[in-house]
Amino acid sequence: MAKVKKSATTRNGLMDKIVSLAKRRGFIFPSSEIYGGLNSCYDYGPLGVELKNNVKKAWWKAMVQRQPDIVGLDASILMHPKVWEASGHIQSFTDPLVDCKKCKKRFRADHLLEDFRSLYPKWQHEPPRTVAELHCPECEGELTAKRDFNLMFKTWLGPVQDEAAQVYLRPETAQGIYVNYDLVVKSSRQKLPFGIAQIGKAFRNEITPGNFTFRTREFEQMEMQWFVAPTEADKWFDDWLKRRQDWYQNYGIPKTSLNLREHKPDELAHYAKRAVDIEFKFPFAGLDGFKELEGVHNRGDWDLSRHEKFSGQELKYTDEATGKKFTPWVIETSGGVDRAVLAFLLNAYEVVAGGRTTTTEANKEEEVVLKLHKDLAPIKAAILPLSKKLELTKVALKIRNELAENLMVQYDATGSIGRRYRRQDEIGTPYCITVDFDTLNDNAVTVRDRDSMKQDRVGISELSDYLFEKYK
Amino acid sequence: MAKVKKSATTRNGLMDKIVSLAKRRGFIFPSSEIYGGLNSCYDYGPLGVELKNNVKKAWWKAMVQRQPDIVGLDASILMHPKVWEASGHIQSFTDPLVDCKKCKKRFRADHLLEDFRSLYPKWQHEPPRTVAELHCPECEGELTAKRDFNLMFKTWLGPVQDEAAQVYLRPETAQGIYVNYDLVVKSSRQKLPFGIAQIGKAFRNEITPGNFTFRTREFEQMEMQWFVAPTEADKWFDDWLKRRQDWYQNYGIPKTSLNLREHKPDELAHYAKRAVDIEFKFPFAGLDGFKELEGVHNRGDWDLSRHEKFSGQELKYTDEATGKKFTPWVIETSGGVDRAVLAFLLNAYEVVAGGRTTTTEANKEEEVVLKLHKDLAPIKAAILPLSKKLELTKVALKIRNELAENLMVQYDATGSIGRRYRRQDEIGTPYCITVDFDTLNDNAVTVRDRDSMKQDRVGISELSDYLFEKYK
Repeated sequence: MAKVKKSATTRNGLMDKIVSLAKRRGFIFPSSEIYGGLNSCYDYGPLGVELKNNVKKAWWKAMVQRQPDIVGLDASILMHPKVWEASGHIQSFTDPLVDCKKCKKRFRADHLLEDFRSLYPKWQHEPPRTVAELHCPECEGELTAKRDFNLMFKTWLGPVQDEAAQVYLRPETAQGIYVNYDLVVKSSRQKLPFGIAQIGKAFRNEITPGNFTFRTREFEQMEMQWFVAPTEADKWFDDWLKRRQDWYQNYGIPKTSLNLREHKPDELAHYAKRAVDIEFKFPFAGLDGFKELEGVHNRGDWDLSRHEKFSGQELKYTDEATGKKFTPWVIETSGGVDRAVLAFLLNAYEVVAGGRTTTTEANKEEEVVLKLHKDLAPIKAAILPLSKKLELTKVALKIRNELAENLMVQYDATGSIGRRYRRQDEIGTPYCITVDFDTLNDNAVTVRDRDSMKQDRVGISELSDYLFEKYK
Repeated sequence: MAKVKKSATTRNGLMDKIVSLAKRRGFIFPSSEIYGGLNSCYDYGPLGVELKNNVKKAWWKAMVQRQPDIVGLDASILMHPKVWEASGHIQSFTDPLVDCKKCKKRFRADHLLEDFRSLYPKWQHEPPRTVAELHCPECEGELTAKRDFNLMFKTWLGPVQDEAAQVYLRPETAQGIYVNYDLVVKSSRQKLPFGIAQIGKAFRNEITPGNFTFRTREFEQMEMQWFVAPTEADKWFDDWLKRRQDWYQNYGIPKTSLNLREHKPDELAHYAKRAVDIEFKFPFAGLDGFKELEGVHNRGDWDLSRHEKFSGQELKYTDEATGKKFTPWVIETSGGVDRAVLAFLLNAYEVVAGGRTTTTEANKEEEVVLKLHKDLAPIKAAILPLSKKLELTKVALKIRNELAENLMVQYDATGSIGRRYRRQDEIGTPYCITVDFDTLNDNAVTVRDRDSMKQDRVGISELSDYLFEKYK
């Protein structure tokens, strides 16, 4: 077997390969592509929707199903506009914007300052200046004064487009949890500390989206808000920070590909007392760089006390033992579904130069193996009849139909068997089941393991149990 | 055991009971309730999100997992605005609107005409008039002329709110499938006939939303588009119409609660050649009335040929045998997730007058049993230790943690055992596992079946397999 090289190409080459594989094999398509695409929107194809659903399922299992002290929620995207006044988003959820008066290009002022040295090499030994001193990095034109641009998308309920009818697409799912805090406590009878978990779409009118599905205007969050006594907030912050890193590692991302980044006081969001990003070695972060995958935040009592103030409804917790009332603090774990999917794809991509199968045909080309964790793999098993002869087809289809009762499987009878193995390797299918002419005599099939390349001969009647053991 | 009465109260009383149960037990909350709610938006609570996810899982299993010829998709909510020009939604997706000049109330002109006889009893023997002849049914004021109001929510990408940046929240998920038709065919190598299935949010700026989660402005669709040769469209229409009715029946809705309604030529949507609604006996449909649960539509080649025209991209299919190119026709099955959840809740609600358990306490009250199909039930099993004594708690928690690896379970140690059974019955939990003092000797627990009330004594080591058999 040829040597397996991890990320054979340069790091940015890896990104291009993932974008190309994602489109070609049906993981991720540019949205509305026949109309030239819609900037920074993406659609998940047949394999992508399975992968994404598996990521969400794995998160829900860890964060809700296994936890006696966390319950789920699914709040609507459109919420009462007062929610965003209370949360501080109307006032503070802004990016600083400048335009070039000459070429009309638009920039984020904070990004210009961050990138000062790379944008203005002649000043590389000077400290970054103020925005007012900078000029357009594209055409050297004069920049407008900086103005704050609110990132919330707005629309109107009902036919009249006035202030009273204005609503926003939620920029974070978290607020849906806070406004339902009291209803959840009453209906689920949870005691502190406890959590409310939610997966759902959020929207941010980013000025500079980019890097494929990393920063998009429409995206999906998986967030958990953990309500605690204020004195216990620090302990739980550390606990959840560790558990969230463990989760990514359980699903195959090595510790060396993760990094923790503590937010400095001046970059903390308006609601945060402390924030640590769990970062992943995304290829576009530069050599040895990392970018945010998930954030763990201590939001203190900011959200609940603001909603209490703005709604006039009490959102406190009464300690049963002491009878004391207080506003719980919140530790939030906030991850991006799309970013997790992208990280798992990037992490799983391996190139085998010269191929790893023994057939002559396969040896000619380099081979891609997507080593996704088996719980995340979109297709759990492929059924590959060795030929299209009727007697094999009948047996193979029967196997497919039986397995499809419990697993997402794929039937593929087209092309050489080596080619079909490679197609499955490229999409990360953990098990390939070959139905051959011996099957007609011994009622057994060959099951090949994607990673060990080990082949087991398994009786058809035991196949369901065999796979059940692998996936339980 | 007392006699079980189906929907013990009047039909509209049933609706009120479901709304109340949904809020009290955490199925469905009014959105942003602490701010007085947001008209017609709802949030799914801890049990609601499980029920809704189970409905989606059941649909995905039937429509994707089991089907070798259907693949999934998850397209974005924001799409290129040209999509809605091509689809005809910008021109035709409108409701006729009239306002009362005196009391300023707003009405749908078509509803006023439909309800002509109930609104104007004095004219009950006359045919409905034209809108121009009607007046306000609330205050008898003069009505404005009818105008067409487009139901698509609009917003803007980027900071400039001009025509060029205007986009819409998708009013149906179907278009995400059509614009990806070619990318899906190429990446999944499907041959006609085949389907693309999708679950996702859609938004319609309804003038008169209402009836709880039946008609909301934000809702979730589960749609499948079946691409066929034009000559086979009628055959497949009938096939899918039958299969979609079977699906609801498989999950417990009796045939007598369903009805088929063929659209008359003058009420067909602009894209439809034929449309049949699968209706459910919703309580607000009046005595013996039905309202739409799902629609099966023959959309002909409307969508693909319009997108071909507007995008300039060929969206045809080449028949391998004959070499002939043609635009496939589409049979669509379009169901509402929220409506399905509501129908399953309404259908499952049963009241046992006088209670059905043998304890004295329970006999005092009427008891509610939510007879949800076990695959849909939010909680698969409840673990109920007979007392809070440490030795029972230890065993019961160990059982909970083991079962929680594979099933959504609930641990409840509070209140009398009769009361805890009733709490589980009310949320539809199929199995209650009681850990009693005998458990400490025989290492076994009592499993009670929600519907048969039969109790099995099951060894703790066999419990996982016992439940696996029930849920496989």
